[in-house]
Amino acid sequence: MNETISLPHYSIFFIPQLEAIREWLAARAYSRVAILVDENTVKHCWPQLSTLLDDPLLIEIPSGESHKNLETCHHIWQQMLEGGLDRKSALLNLGGGVIGDMGGFCAATFMRGIDFVQIPTTLLAQVDASVGGKLGIDFQHYKNMVGLFVDPQAVFIFLPFLETLPARELRSGYAEVIKHALIGDAGLWEQLLAHTDPATVDWETVLPRALMVKKRIVEADPLETGLRQVLNFGHTVGHAIETWALSHGLDLLHGEAVAQGMIAETRLSHQYAGLSKTDMDRIISFLEIAFPHVSPAPEAELNAIMQKDKKNLKGQIRMALLEGVGKYGVDNQTPDIALFLP
Amino acid sequence: MNETISLPHYSIFFIPQLEAIREWLAARAYSRVAILVDENTVKHCWPQLSTLLDDPLLIEIPSGESHKNLETCHHIWQQMLEGGLDRKSALLNLGGGVIGDMGGFCAATFMRGIDFVQIPTTLLAQVDASVGGKLGIDFQHYKNMVGLFVDPQAVFIFLPFLETLPARELRSGYAEVIKHALIGDAGLWEQLLAHTDPATVDWETVLPRALMVKKRIVEADPLETGLRQVLNFGHTVGHAIETWALSHGLDLLHGEAVAQGMIAETRLSHQYAGLSKTDMDRIISFLEIAFPHVSPAPEAELNAIMQKDKKNLKGQIRMALLEGVGKYGVDNQTPDIALFLP
Repeated sequence: MNETISLPHYSIFFIPQLEAIREWLAARAYSRVAILVDENTVKHCWPQLSTLLDDPLLIEIPSGESHKNLETCHHIWQQMLEGGLDRKSALLNLGGGVIGDMGGFCAATFMRGIDFVQIPTTLLAQVDASVGGKLGIDFQHYKNMVGLFVDPQAVFIFLPFLETLPARELRSGYAEVIKHALIGDAGLWEQLLAHTDPATVDWETVLPRALMVKKRIVEADPLETGLRQVLNFGHTVGHAIETWALSHGLDLLHGEAVAQGMIAETRLSHQYAGLSKTDMDRIISFLEIAFPHVSPAPEAELNAIMQKDKKNLKGQIRMALLEGVGKYGVDNQTPDIALFLP
Repeated sequence: MNETISLPHYSIFFIPQLEAIREWLAARAYSRVAILVDENTVKHCWPQLSTLLDDPLLIEIPSGESHKNLETCHHIWQQMLEGGLDRKSALLNLGGGVIGDMGGFCAATFMRGIDFVQIPTTLLAQVDASVGGKLGIDFQHYKNMVGLFVDPQAVFIFLPFLETLPARELRSGYAEVIKHALIGDAGLWEQLLAHTDPATVDWETVLPRALMVKKRIVEADPLETGLRQVLNFGHTVGHAIETWALSHGLDLLHGEAVAQGMIAETRLSHQYAGLSKTDMDRIISFLEIAFPHVSPAPEAELNAIMQKDKKNLKGQIRMALLEGVGKYGVDNQTPDIALFLP
């Protein structure tokens, strides 16, 4: 496999060997390259990459959404400053979504912006964070409240990194793959239906296909002014669940929250957006098998959290719902979403 | 006076009445408008504007460069969040350079970017911050180390605000006006030579002319990859002096530091870039009269600070020097700048 997905300002390279990263960097002559890792990727991924880089500055942060905040940014900027990075330096983000979102944010604001490269090591980051240029951190327990849109210089996807993931992490990423199929690729959805266990999925064919759904949407709407909101399917409720879990110190992965959010929003899609009962039943029973043991959140608290959702307009909760499988959804104003939570 | 300077993505409006701001906002139908002030502008400028806005969210921060940091951003983002701002809201920055740079940064990153409008109330902010989209905050006492390039939706310049300024503030802003003349408008420089006291300057004619110098440069190089570095004349040494003063708790205004920086860099311009001795002598004696009583900073410390300058490449200090008055300068690598400090 040696596939490349080209976007307007950068490419996603599916690379069979990490050596490709060294070659790409060599052609750019950065004054210095820094690499952002967490305690997982420094152990499982960094050793394979370290020998390919020339005097890199290694910046390590603790893993997990609870560290995706200003304090950690402070640490990253400080390391970049003390490491002598200048405007012609680059940051490689080696890790999952938190590393990519926060590292991208720190790079895009360091000295008003230096180059950065995403090397997503989780399925979630590979499928979701590779396309779209959304960077950011959480603030006051609200997800991605501070951030911006800036594209990376390149994304490198090295599928063997998925083998370093715990089963639970792989499953979390699978939620986004399912979402991409549901909103934009009915054929892919039919294919996934046979795989409630993500360990049985052939990523070499599935991942590029899921990414193409996102590419199509993002290119049509780079700044999320319209169509791109369909990518939020499952995420209005999902983010609220995640925010609630974060503020209660609960251990909940993003994809687990999104899976639960998709269940709720699939019900709403049937109710409000014309999704057939057959499709609703298939989606929900599939998700319930693929994502067992997800604890419910209190409806009133979720509702309060959703009142602060970035997509709201004039205090009205908005979400992207499915009209059918594989069709782009529509934005609906949903007056009382809590009624429909599981 | 009713002049407008049009830039590619926004305009600078010289407005005789603040009422023009209300009209501009009305045409945009923002969901909510917030306004960022400090203890000076809330007292001297806000009363004239407050009656023109519909239920604005007032956010007040303490004035001064020492508050242009992450902690103050935290406060601003928190107020925006608690005030219920959404993606269709806007922030008006009513104040000097600190308010504009930091308010712009907070707006451009809040929910990945909301609209913001600059209403500069100081001469410094009117001449320097109106054009160019440079936003940011200081970090670890390094000036503008964290920031980005984002244009405002509009800039409103209301000259009567200058009458609210202390003489020292007006003089500080004058340093940037002089800089614009020196780098890009020899005729303006000849005109300013008669005015060592900025209180005698006719701003209605001088300010648009100084802004046109910056407009011309920024349009040619929006992301500061080349030509735009000429705007840094006086600022490599000036920023180092400012950083040094900030870290020692000294009371030094930006323009005072820049004036001292221009004196140093004018000497270097003669030495390295071909500026004539006659021009050097005229510039330095003018600046020494217009900016008396500026205390010198220790050379070794300035040198250490300049080693971290954002413009450096591979550890080499770079600065923009004058080849002549009104000509764009060139970038020079200056191996040992401290030798030339006054």
